[in-house]
Amino acid sequence: MNASADTVARQLDEAARAARVAAGQLARAGRPAKDHALAVAAGALRARTDALLAANAADLDSAPGLTPAFRDRLVLNPARIEAMARGLEEVAALPDPVGRLLAEWTRPNGLVMRRVAQPLGVIGMIYESRPNVTADAAALCLKAGSAVLLRGGSESARSSAAIHACMVEGLREAGLPEAAVQIAPTQDRAFVGAMLRAAGLIDLIIPRGGKGLVTRVMEEARVPVLAHAEGVNHTYVHAAADHGMARRLLANAKMRRTGVCGATETLLIDAAIAPGLLPLLVEDLAALGCAFRADERARALLPALPVATEADFATEWLDAILCIKVVDGVDSALAHIRHYGSEHTEAIVTEDAAAATAFLNGLDAAVGLWNASTQFCDGGEFGFGAEIGIATGRLQARGPVGLEQLCTYRYHVLGTGQIRP
Amino acid sequence: MNASADTVARQLDEAARAARVAAGQLARAGRPAKDHALAVAAGALRARTDALLAANAADLDSAPGLTPAFRDRLVLNPARIEAMARGLEEVAALPDPVGRLLAEWTRPNGLVMRRVAQPLGVIGMIYESRPNVTADAAALCLKAGSAVLLRGGSESARSSAAIHACMVEGLREAGLPEAAVQIAPTQDRAFVGAMLRAAGLIDLIIPRGGKGLVTRVMEEARVPVLAHAEGVNHTYVHAAADHGMARRLLANAKMRRTGVCGATETLLIDAAIAPGLLPLLVEDLAALGCAFRADERARALLPALPVATEADFATEWLDAILCIKVVDGVDSALAHIRHYGSEHTEAIVTEDAAAATAFLNGLDAAVGLWNASTQFCDGGEFGFGAEIGIATGRLQARGPVGLEQLCTYRYHVLGTGQIRP
Repeated sequence: MNASADTVARQLDEAARAARVAAGQLARAGRPAKDHALAVAAGALRARTDALLAANAADLDSAPGLTPAFRDRLVLNPARIEAMARGLEEVAALPDPVGRLLAEWTRPNGLVMRRVAQPLGVIGMIYESRPNVTADAAALCLKAGSAVLLRGGSESARSSAAIHACMVEGLREAGLPEAAVQIAPTQDRAFVGAMLRAAGLIDLIIPRGGKGLVTRVMEEARVPVLAHAEGVNHTYVHAAADHGMARRLLANAKMRRTGVCGATETLLIDAAIAPGLLPLLVEDLAALGCAFRADERARALLPALPVATEADFATEWLDAILCIKVVDGVDSALAHIRHYGSEHTEAIVTEDAAAATAFLNGLDAAVGLWNASTQFCDGGEFGFGAEIGIATGRLQARGPVGLEQLCTYRYHVLGTGQIRP
Repeated sequence: MNASADTVARQLDEAARAARVAAGQLARAGRPAKDHALAVAAGALRARTDALLAANAADLDSAPGLTPAFRDRLVLNPARIEAMARGLEEVAALPDPVGRLLAEWTRPNGLVMRRVAQPLGVIGMIYESRPNVTADAAALCLKAGSAVLLRGGSESARSSAAIHACMVEGLREAGLPEAAVQIAPTQDRAFVGAMLRAAGLIDLIIPRGGKGLVTRVMEEARVPVLAHAEGVNHTYVHAAADHGMARRLLANAKMRRTGVCGATETLLIDAAIAPGLLPLLVEDLAALGCAFRADERARALLPALPVATEADFATEWLDAILCIKVVDGVDSALAHIRHYGSEHTEAIVTEDAAAATAFLNGLDAAVGLWNASTQFCDGGEFGFGAEIGIATGRLQARGPVGLEQLCTYRYHVLGTGQIRP
């Protein structure tokens, strides 16, 4: 190990150990202290708007040649700062997920068994350039009673540091340990690697960003990861679909926001209704600026559509492009989804309850919808109040990850002197 | 990669891919087929008792020089075979964990949100020489709708293969895919390494065996692991304990079975009651054959007790040895437990509800008990019917892992044409 790697490993170790101690205190902190910390941090964000804008300007200045999209993700303005502050207040207003009684039962011997929600411990957050993730993630982890170690993109380092200072002010005012919300002490990329290897020190890694970042984290991590790499989502218009509903749903699922992970990337449509309905669906979407990639059966109906390749069907466009495939019923649609989908979000449009049930039960996806837009795959829309991300793995949580999903549990067993025979 | 490693990697890949396909079929199989498979397998175990005993005799013959304890773990007899068969029938009788409605709520826009239990997928089971684990683990994974890849100790390879053949007969009779329960195709130790690295192919690894095996699995695995490495558990006798209850509970917690992970390893006793009670506790346990390691404050009361070292307090004895430490109330007991405990199972004996609450809330352990024996940390005693192990990690499940904990979930969202604004 060279000197630099050694230094980074020591920095990670120190940060994670301080986080563990802070997590213990936070786990036992009551709701009032956590909410007070969030309220004070929100106030600090507002009070320091000028300082935040100056830090953000310095970030922008030191990264010339950014693409407009990248610059948009990085930039702060008074409205965005106000939105961050309000976000903290909204998290404060949510119920405390810690200590909830998840289940209770009594055994024949009189033992009362209680399953109680408990914080996860120490969470590592690895993200890209959006400075607001610093505030959002810190707030959710804090409310969920876990310490968090934040490692954002280096392009937004000054902005994140300024936001972090507001969080620390909240912790201090509320009498909570400052180490409960830490920002990576170095921008050395080796620190990310050290986080990913910190099994036993960090309980969970949550990456947030593009597919490249998330895939790297998933591949390298020795710590459990909650994430989704991509959302190649399908809207399946079944033969018994209401045509008007199918048109409204597809337009929304594809075009409301094309860059979100719940956006539909492929239309599957039953052969029985394709001749009448597909041209209308294409016309609707074309009017909204959507481009297309179609299989041969769709092109037989609409020869002007470009050809979809195998790779196209496996692509998460995050753009105004829709793949189209004609299928032959639920099993055919499911077979396509199992091959090309990413177990994220899948929808069926049909008036046939049996078909809908077969579709939903046949999916492996985290979220299956019947007669609703795939864009509803969102913690806020699920009623979670806020989300830290969407998970498509199999462990701990699937779909939107909110405060409840950021908790684990423990058992409290209440006896009156029972011994085991 | 040398030829052998290449072969093993290919074997793992083939087995895991077949398991994935089987898992998809199993996830959609109904309860009757799964229960039928278990019933047929139980019948096959009974019908083939002679063949099982012959396979087991061959295992024993080819491993001379076994310690008596090791031999006892490995040996089969008619009673043990009957117990395995009955175990399969008991799992068949348990409710189906798949498809349970875990939560349902309706959003203001009319969307009905359902959280539904779903199988995990493909589970890798890595265990030592007890052949019955082959039957137990296969049954639990099958009932939970997941495919399982079993890799037991090479000493019991023939016994496990014979048991596995009975499971396969059950699957075949029930029309379920045989690849749903697979046994490692090679005894090459590299296969274990390949399982541990099979992220994306295997969803969860469950190790079962000694601390050495479990620790190796936890350190090397790139796949999530559900396990506990050890149980350094404490029974804390608080100043307000009922003395008679404390004596009964400690004797049971330490001596009922010393080799189980829920056994108490250390007695913590409040200084206020130690002079009167500790001599009685020691007398009770000594009469049961227990030895002791005591701190200086305990030895001030009972000078004949051997000295406990730092290392002693961190040791999971799994034997008739008890460490003893005199403490000064709940915070003092919790501080000791945080330092030496393994977040497994911790008990307090007290008539003081406030002290009990402070103790239970102050723990990080998977299971905390009030006025009950630590030996209750067991899936059967929790009412789970059966358990595949005990988990002390933070993700997915903590404490006894039964059928429900072997499931993940997905969402079904039922709409009437809702689009996202």
